[in-house]
Amino acid sequence: MDLYSKIIQGDTNALSKAITLVESTLEKDKKESQKLLSKCIQKEHNSIRIGITGMPGVGKSSFIEQFGTTFLRRKRKVAVLAIDPSSEKTQGSILGDKSRMQTLANNKNVFIRPSSNSGILGGVSNNTKDSIILCEAAGYDIIIIETVGVGQSETIVNQLVDIMLLLTITGAGDRLQGIKKGINELANLIIITKDDGNNQEKVKETMLDYNSIMSLNIKTDANSIPKVFKCSSHENTGIKEINIATKQYIQRSKETNLFNIKRTTQKTYWINKILKEELGNRKYNELKQTNRIIDIENKIIKEKKNLFDLIANL
Amino acid sequence: MDLYSKIIQGDTNALSKAITLVESTLEKDKKESQKLLSKCIQKEHNSIRIGITGMPGVGKSSFIEQFGTTFLRRKRKVAVLAIDPSSEKTQGSILGDKSRMQTLANNKNVFIRPSSNSGILGGVSNNTKDSIILCEAAGYDIIIIETVGVGQSETIVNQLVDIMLLLTITGAGDRLQGIKKGINELANLIIITKDDGNNQEKVKETMLDYNSIMSLNIKTDANSIPKVFKCSSHENTGIKEINIATKQYIQRSKETNLFNIKRTTQKTYWINKILKEELGNRKYNELKQTNRIIDIENKIIKEKKNLFDLIANL
Repeated sequence: MDLYSKIIQGDTNALSKAITLVESTLEKDKKESQKLLSKCIQKEHNSIRIGITGMPGVGKSSFIEQFGTTFLRRKRKVAVLAIDPSSEKTQGSILGDKSRMQTLANNKNVFIRPSSNSGILGGVSNNTKDSIILCEAAGYDIIIIETVGVGQSETIVNQLVDIMLLLTITGAGDRLQGIKKGINELANLIIITKDDGNNQEKVKETMLDYNSIMSLNIKTDANSIPKVFKCSSHENTGIKEINIATKQYIQRSKETNLFNIKRTTQKTYWINKILKEELGNRKYNELKQTNRIIDIENKIIKEKKNLFDLIANL
Repeated sequence: MDLYSKIIQGDTNALSKAITLVESTLEKDKKESQKLLSKCIQKEHNSIRIGITGMPGVGKSSFIEQFGTTFLRRKRKVAVLAIDPSSEKTQGSILGDKSRMQTLANNKNVFIRPSSNSGILGGVSNNTKDSIILCEAAGYDIIIIETVGVGQSETIVNQLVDIMLLLTITGAGDRLQGIKKGINELANLIIITKDDGNNQEKVKETMLDYNSIMSLNIKTDANSIPKVFKCSSHENTGIKEINIATKQYIQRSKETNLFNIKRTTQKTYWINKILKEELGNRKYNELKQTNRIIDIENKIIKEKKNLFDLIANL
């Protein structure tokens, strides 16, 4: 049986293998993965893609452990693509996310894939988009994309997901973070974590702060103003409400057709991005084969020629 | 007098104007800025480029306020290029870094430039490299690049600077952060901030933690193992030691020729990066003019054709 047939039958080993294939930078793997993706893309699937972001230490993994579970009750299948910021030098993931999502990891309806970002900025690469397609072909209904960020990687994750959840905590620098428009504009739900023990009073204050910032929002469409929630992954409180809010947001997006518009905009974004990159790579490799690149490097570094002048004459 | 002449005479308004020019995405500005940069690059300048990174809330601006001042004592000129993570939607910088560096901002030997990253991942764009060249032509000896990061933007800032300072605080998730190889491998000095008041005991512990992690380092070259420091920007303690360590690191880099090797590697990195991008842009714009891009978009979105198959036939 070929890889594609195995994937659509729900073979998770085949799915893992396929994701490794799309992450590969080898030319022969690239060709194979494109063939596979061409087949998978034909298979329409009614999925929901959820982005979860926040700075290190806000408790993303613990949250996903509880939040992911809320989707399993009605026999839905959940895939978690966790993007580890990895060492550029060692090219390896350092933290194993699987070990921090024990309950999910042991459920047969859950697929967890920690992807190393291999030094690519923002932690999200063109491959993340392909991994989503593979998971959907394998029948996963809820695709969770976990990413680390401070307002930079979110912008690209936003090109992948239907809804974006921003996790935040109380504490130092937090008020300042709250007003960072960049993050809040991209977030659809803002979630204050660690609402437990003697932290609850602070969480309440932080929630008020966020709500007052949100009330200054000039958007007229109620669905586009981020709602603020609190939760404790440790005590499993507030999670159900976030599940409901997520579903409500998606439902309203579908009613207003924003859901489809966003998906098409995202497709166009990726087509143009990859097109530009590939056209550049093709021409670059052509030049490299005739040693023209070294020639250009020397002209710029040694002769202090201008790069753009040199390009104009290529 | 033309912009170039004004810049080399130390006219800061001209320098600001030039940076705005290199940040511009307009085609006519691009041509003008390339001409300007071609002139500036001819002017060799013995500068030191210092990267300062850390998560929001670690106190980067307060640190730079004190650290930058230590370089002013011997009539050196200091430029600070502060990269604001900005809103992709509003395209504007939200936080004014100048207001958080009062003493520096009022010194005539200091130039502070907050640059919005305009949604570019990592906060650093190709323009940052050009801004450094402009500042050096204007006679700045110390170029400080401030960036926000969690191990992602640092990798690209590392392609711009001679030394990288990582700022960190004690607290939640910190021990976990400490072992994140990606960050520590790129940092040359690790600095624990907010060493004041009743935080001092915690800082001492965090310092021990970091030092024990560093002792596991298998590198044989002592200069390549990050040294750990503590400081208080509030009380202005520990800053002088960091100034000395910075200068020692640079001196040793120069003695071992690593300094020059790194600068050449960086130049080669940027040449190849920009070359690929520009070759892609040129071909892309060519296709766009003949409506081929829309054609490709339709074939992929409506007919579910494969992007790579379509590129192969271009």
